[in-house]
Amino acid sequence: MSLTPDQQAEIEASRANPQETLRATVAGMENHLYTAKPVLDHGFVRVIDYMGDDSAIVQAARVSYGRGTKAVQSDAGLIRYLMRHWHSTPFEMCEIKLHVKLPVFVARQWIRHRTANVNEYSARYSILDREFYIPAPEHLAAQSKVNNQGRGATLEGEEAARVLDILRDDSNRAYDHYESMLSQDGQDGLARELARMNLPANIYTQWYWKVDLHNLFHFLRLRADAHAQYEIRVYAETICDIVRDWVPAAYSAFEDYRLNSVQFSGKALDVIRRRLAGETVTQEDSGMSKGEWREFEASLE
Amino acid sequence: MSLTPDQQAEIEASRANPQETLRATVAGMENHLYTAKPVLDHGFVRVIDYMGDDSAIVQAARVSYGRGTKAVQSDAGLIRYLMRHWHSTPFEMCEIKLHVKLPVFVARQWIRHRTANVNEYSARYSILDREFYIPAPEHLAAQSKVNNQGRGATLEGEEAARVLDILRDDSNRAYDHYESMLSQDGQDGLARELARMNLPANIYTQWYWKVDLHNLFHFLRLRADAHAQYEIRVYAETICDIVRDWVPAAYSAFEDYRLNSVQFSGKALDVIRRRLAGETVTQEDSGMSKGEWREFEASLE
Amino acid sequence: MSLTPDQQAEIEASRANPQETLRATVAGMENHLYTAKPVLDHGFVRVIDYMGDDSAIVQAARVSYGRGTKAVQSDAGLIRYLMRHWHSTPFEMCEIKLHVKLPVFVARQWIRHRTANVNEYSARYSILDREFYIPAPEHLAAQSKVNNQGRGATLEGEEAARVLDILRDDSNRAYDHYESMLSQDGQDGLARELARMNLPANIYTQWYWKVDLHNLFHFLRLRADAHAQYEIRVYAETICDIVRDWVPAAYSAFEDYRLNSVQFSGKALDVIRRRLAGETVTQEDSGMSKGEWREFEASLE
Amino acid sequence: MSLTPDQQAEIEASRANPQETLRATVAGMENHLYTAKPVLDHGFVRVIDYMGDDSAIVQAARVSYGRGTKAVQSDAGLIRYLMRHWHSTPFEMCEIKLHVKLPVFVARQWIRHRTANVNEYSARYSILDREFYIPAPEHLAAQSKVNNQGRGATLEGEEAARVLDILRDDSNRAYDHYESMLSQDGQDGLARELARMNLPANIYTQWYWKVDLHNLFHFLRLRADAHAQYEIRVYAETICDIVRDWVPAAYSAFEDYRLNSVQFSGKALDVIRRRLAGETVTQEDSGMSKGEWREFEASLE
Repeated sequence: MSLTPDQQAEIEASRANPQETLRATVAGMENHLYTAKPVLDHGFVRVIDYMGDDSAIVQAARVSYGRGTKAVQSDAGLIRYLMRHWHSTPFEMCEIKLHVKLPVFVARQWIRHRTANVNEYSARYSILDREFYIPAPEHLAAQSKVNNQGRGATLEGEEAARVLDILRDDSNRAYDHYESMLSQDGQDGLARELARMNLPANIYTQWYWKVDLHNLFHFLRLRADAHAQYEIRVYAETICDIVRDWVPAAYSAFEDYRLNSVQFSGKALDVIRRRLAGETVTQEDSGMSKGEWREFEASLE
Repeated sequence: MSLTPDQQAEIEASRANPQETLRATVAGMENHLYTAKPVLDHGFVRVIDYMGDDSAIVQAARVSYGRGTKAVQSDAGLIRYLMRHWHSTPFEMCEIKLHVKLPVFVARQWIRHRTANVNEYSARYSILDREFYIPAPEHLAAQSKVNNQGRGATLEGEEAARVLDILRDDSNRAYDHYESMLSQDGQDGLARELARMNLPANIYTQWYWKVDLHNLFHFLRLRADAHAQYEIRVYAETICDIVRDWVPAAYSAFEDYRLNSVQFSGKALDVIRRRLAGETVTQEDSGMSKGEWREFEASLE
Repeated sequence: MSLTPDQQAEIEASRANPQETLRATVAGMENHLYTAKPVLDHGFVRVIDYMGDDSAIVQAARVSYGRGTKAVQSDAGLIRYLMRHWHSTPFEMCEIKLHVKLPVFVARQWIRHRTANVNEYSARYSILDREFYIPAPEHLAAQSKVNNQGRGATLEGEEAARVLDILRDDSNRAYDHYESMLSQDGQDGLARELARMNLPANIYTQWYWKVDLHNLFHFLRLRADAHAQYEIRVYAETICDIVRDWVPAAYSAFEDYRLNSVQFSGKALDVIRRRLAGETVTQEDSGMSKGEWREFEASLE
Repeated sequence: MSLTPDQQAEIEASRANPQETLRATVAGMENHLYTAKPVLDHGFVRVIDYMGDDSAIVQAARVSYGRGTKAVQSDAGLIRYLMRHWHSTPFEMCEIKLHVKLPVFVARQWIRHRTANVNEYSARYSILDREFYIPAPEHLAAQSKVNNQGRGATLEGEEAARVLDILRDDSNRAYDHYESMLSQDGQDGLARELARMNLPANIYTQWYWKVDLHNLFHFLRLRADAHAQYEIRVYAETICDIVRDWVPAAYSAFEDYRLNSVQFSGKALDVIRRRLAGETVTQEDSGMSKGEWREFEASLE
């Protein structure tokens, strides 16, 4: 990860000068504020701001459900209840703003989550830095044999070396050419909005990304999942660590009811009931396809 | 406006205990926090939380446009530029959370703004209070003669008195019946989710409403407008006063480029050009319909 | 249900004149088009337009996943795969537009689903009809003893009669007063935007509602659920019948993976694994709260 | 543009077999259906489906405003009224689905419009084709001297040739390396989700894009604007031609009230009023900044 001296100075200035506030504050988040958590070779995640805490979720739920909720349940219990029953609106009452530096091909997946606010660095307006994602050798993986959309074993030896050479050389050549096309030294210089088209998808971009907690959990469920591409999963995991410090009760409910949960179809539920009643059930008499059965069996291991 | 002693105590507790934070804070907003601004006869607006300030808008814009923006323009100048050119994403980087108490018929208009987070008091779950909006005599207006969707002159004398009596009596009777249907005294008691259907649209409800600054400006442009219904306009105006203290530079740009602005069609622009060139232009040779011409002329007065 | 003669004539005209189209058409939906399915005492659901069919979902998925998908899987199998793995975007490629007449208190729940397009009848602009929802005797239920947000047994005898009298009388009186306040006979007449506030929440309103299939499924999962209020559930069930005729493969996958499915938390999954391995597990050693355990046990029955 | 023989055959099959429908149909759109409009060197726009027509907008508005609207205004007049007064919901009642092939750097701008449904070709799952955008010589422009975010004069002679050579060579080399890294000939073959990171932003991708008319107009206003980057503007212009055939009255209102309109701030409006009253006003006594004044003067030319 590479913060410029300017960015480092800005972080220090921001952290030097606490103010008094009457808003909800979370000690764990104050520690995270502005500092950059490294991700991949040049990326990072920085907390820029946050709104609300576990109590803000409870408070919003109590606007909806009235005083009754006050007596019966502890805050953590109420939060678990809300999560279990898909009462999503109280979680929307918390908001977080992150500064993220990430490769363009990761950004392209990430942006598909539409319910968020984004300000991305504009390569029409400004010149991108020479920073490219080059996978660490242990993350250089072969195409999966069984999953069109996944990775298999780690590449080894000469093949790995060849791939890394290609990625490094092509990135650097593309950037050299980007600079030479932009240059106004003895020539007019190509427009930035055109020159950028020569840059490969492993170049780093950055953005501010602001999202409410409900939509963030949805993002994390999909992107911290074992099936997500490694390069976005490490961002999701970094954010998970932050969220755990921000709203510990909500995060714990999210882990149990989302990250570690399984959704069983009507057919799968029927198999479980029959098995619990002592019956032996096979794929053939389950009503499930082979693929579905395989996934079902895996979820019970 | 009527805060319960519980609510009043909660506000005082929230205001008693400032914490240190490294986040952006705004002195004007700290003053507003938690206190209830009265609106209509029983309504209010309370700031529960806020994220960001004018600098947060500028900071997000600079992520997009890079260092270049730093030298050229003051913060207020950059904010005006962003507003003028409909660069809306930096304004989305600020967020506000309000607690609002409002009549149901106002809530029904308000909720049409979909890009916001809402937790409303649930009359399925809890029992509503006996609080109804009864217009002040000076806001009891006749149907407009010219605008199907507007008000004319204030009602006077006996007619006004009759209307107020109806509104008061019907509200109270409806609430009495609501209570008697709910009562479990010597009977089973009707389900809350059914009993509520007897309550008229001037009963008060309440919600937490959280929205980003860009979408809030859109709400305020439509609802603080002279054509908005008075009963929602007073909420919008109360929020305008809060936003002015929160993000003064953005609010000032919003006033100039949105609230006080006029959008001229191609045809209207053509008339202005011809008039500035000394030509006399009438509706007949403007290409505009009579209605459009009337609105155009009004916008120039 | 009461369609005006005008509406009836409009439906007949719309159905009289088929046109040729190259778009995807579905015979089952052509039969539904424009005709009103009655719901509750005066409500209805009418299909106004639809876009796409089961094949449109598959076609969109194949843009994403390329030719590979073509060989391996039948359309229905691919649709089941997409539903199982929460690949929601192909389902967004189908769209439906409905005309719905519904009580205001149902509309207030319904509108909380934000990802839809809505045009509601405006009581600021126009005068509402004298149509109120009065529950059929078998749907007049007591407050649930166990669930703050639900119904218990049906009300009987005198109590039921009293409630129905109240609902009928208050509705009619409120409407009489609405009319008398609006009247311009010998008086100015109150503005429509004010007079409407006297009308109770069981008055009928109507709207056009347009939504994509993914978001419609989300609506149906929540509103066709046994915990949804009866008065919105009957709308959801009517729409389920329509969707079954529109996209049979997608609807069948939705039934299995959503309507009839159960989400097990990490803790619940652990209990199932232990039980399948022959262990006896009780609430005490499950890590679940009593409430959660009760719901878990119920889901296995 | 290059459609594969498969795609061409699919288009012909789709166009060969008209069906009867009771839905709104538009002759102009039936002609467009499925056929590919070429854009840039390999891109296209194809209409896959549409919902509604000008009458559907009017019909939805009449649900809102009741019978009153029927007598007073012609359909086109009502549509102009709705557009002028920002009544956006009736326009949301029309929907269009497009198949678009476009360079990745254009897709990255396009996707920022969040209120749409998208299914993009997945380079995690499938292998991209060797198709890159290489600007035509007349669109190879220098960086603007006055606008950080724009283009100046066309590049000429040797500089132009050098740029085109770079773009062509780098694209081809990147693709050769992409193929060689993927190859499983004598090696394991890199995972697709990794190999794609070597491809530059001028490679073509494709997606299905579905959007309602209101949000499409918003897209077109920004992207058919003279300040939009040429490479996205040509897509917007192609779509404008399609929309003109689809909803001619709405498109005409959009042209007058959006595309050809100008928004004047409170300050600008004041200057116009003073000038129309015969006063000479300069930037110094306008209250506007120099930049703003320049834009204001330009809008009156």
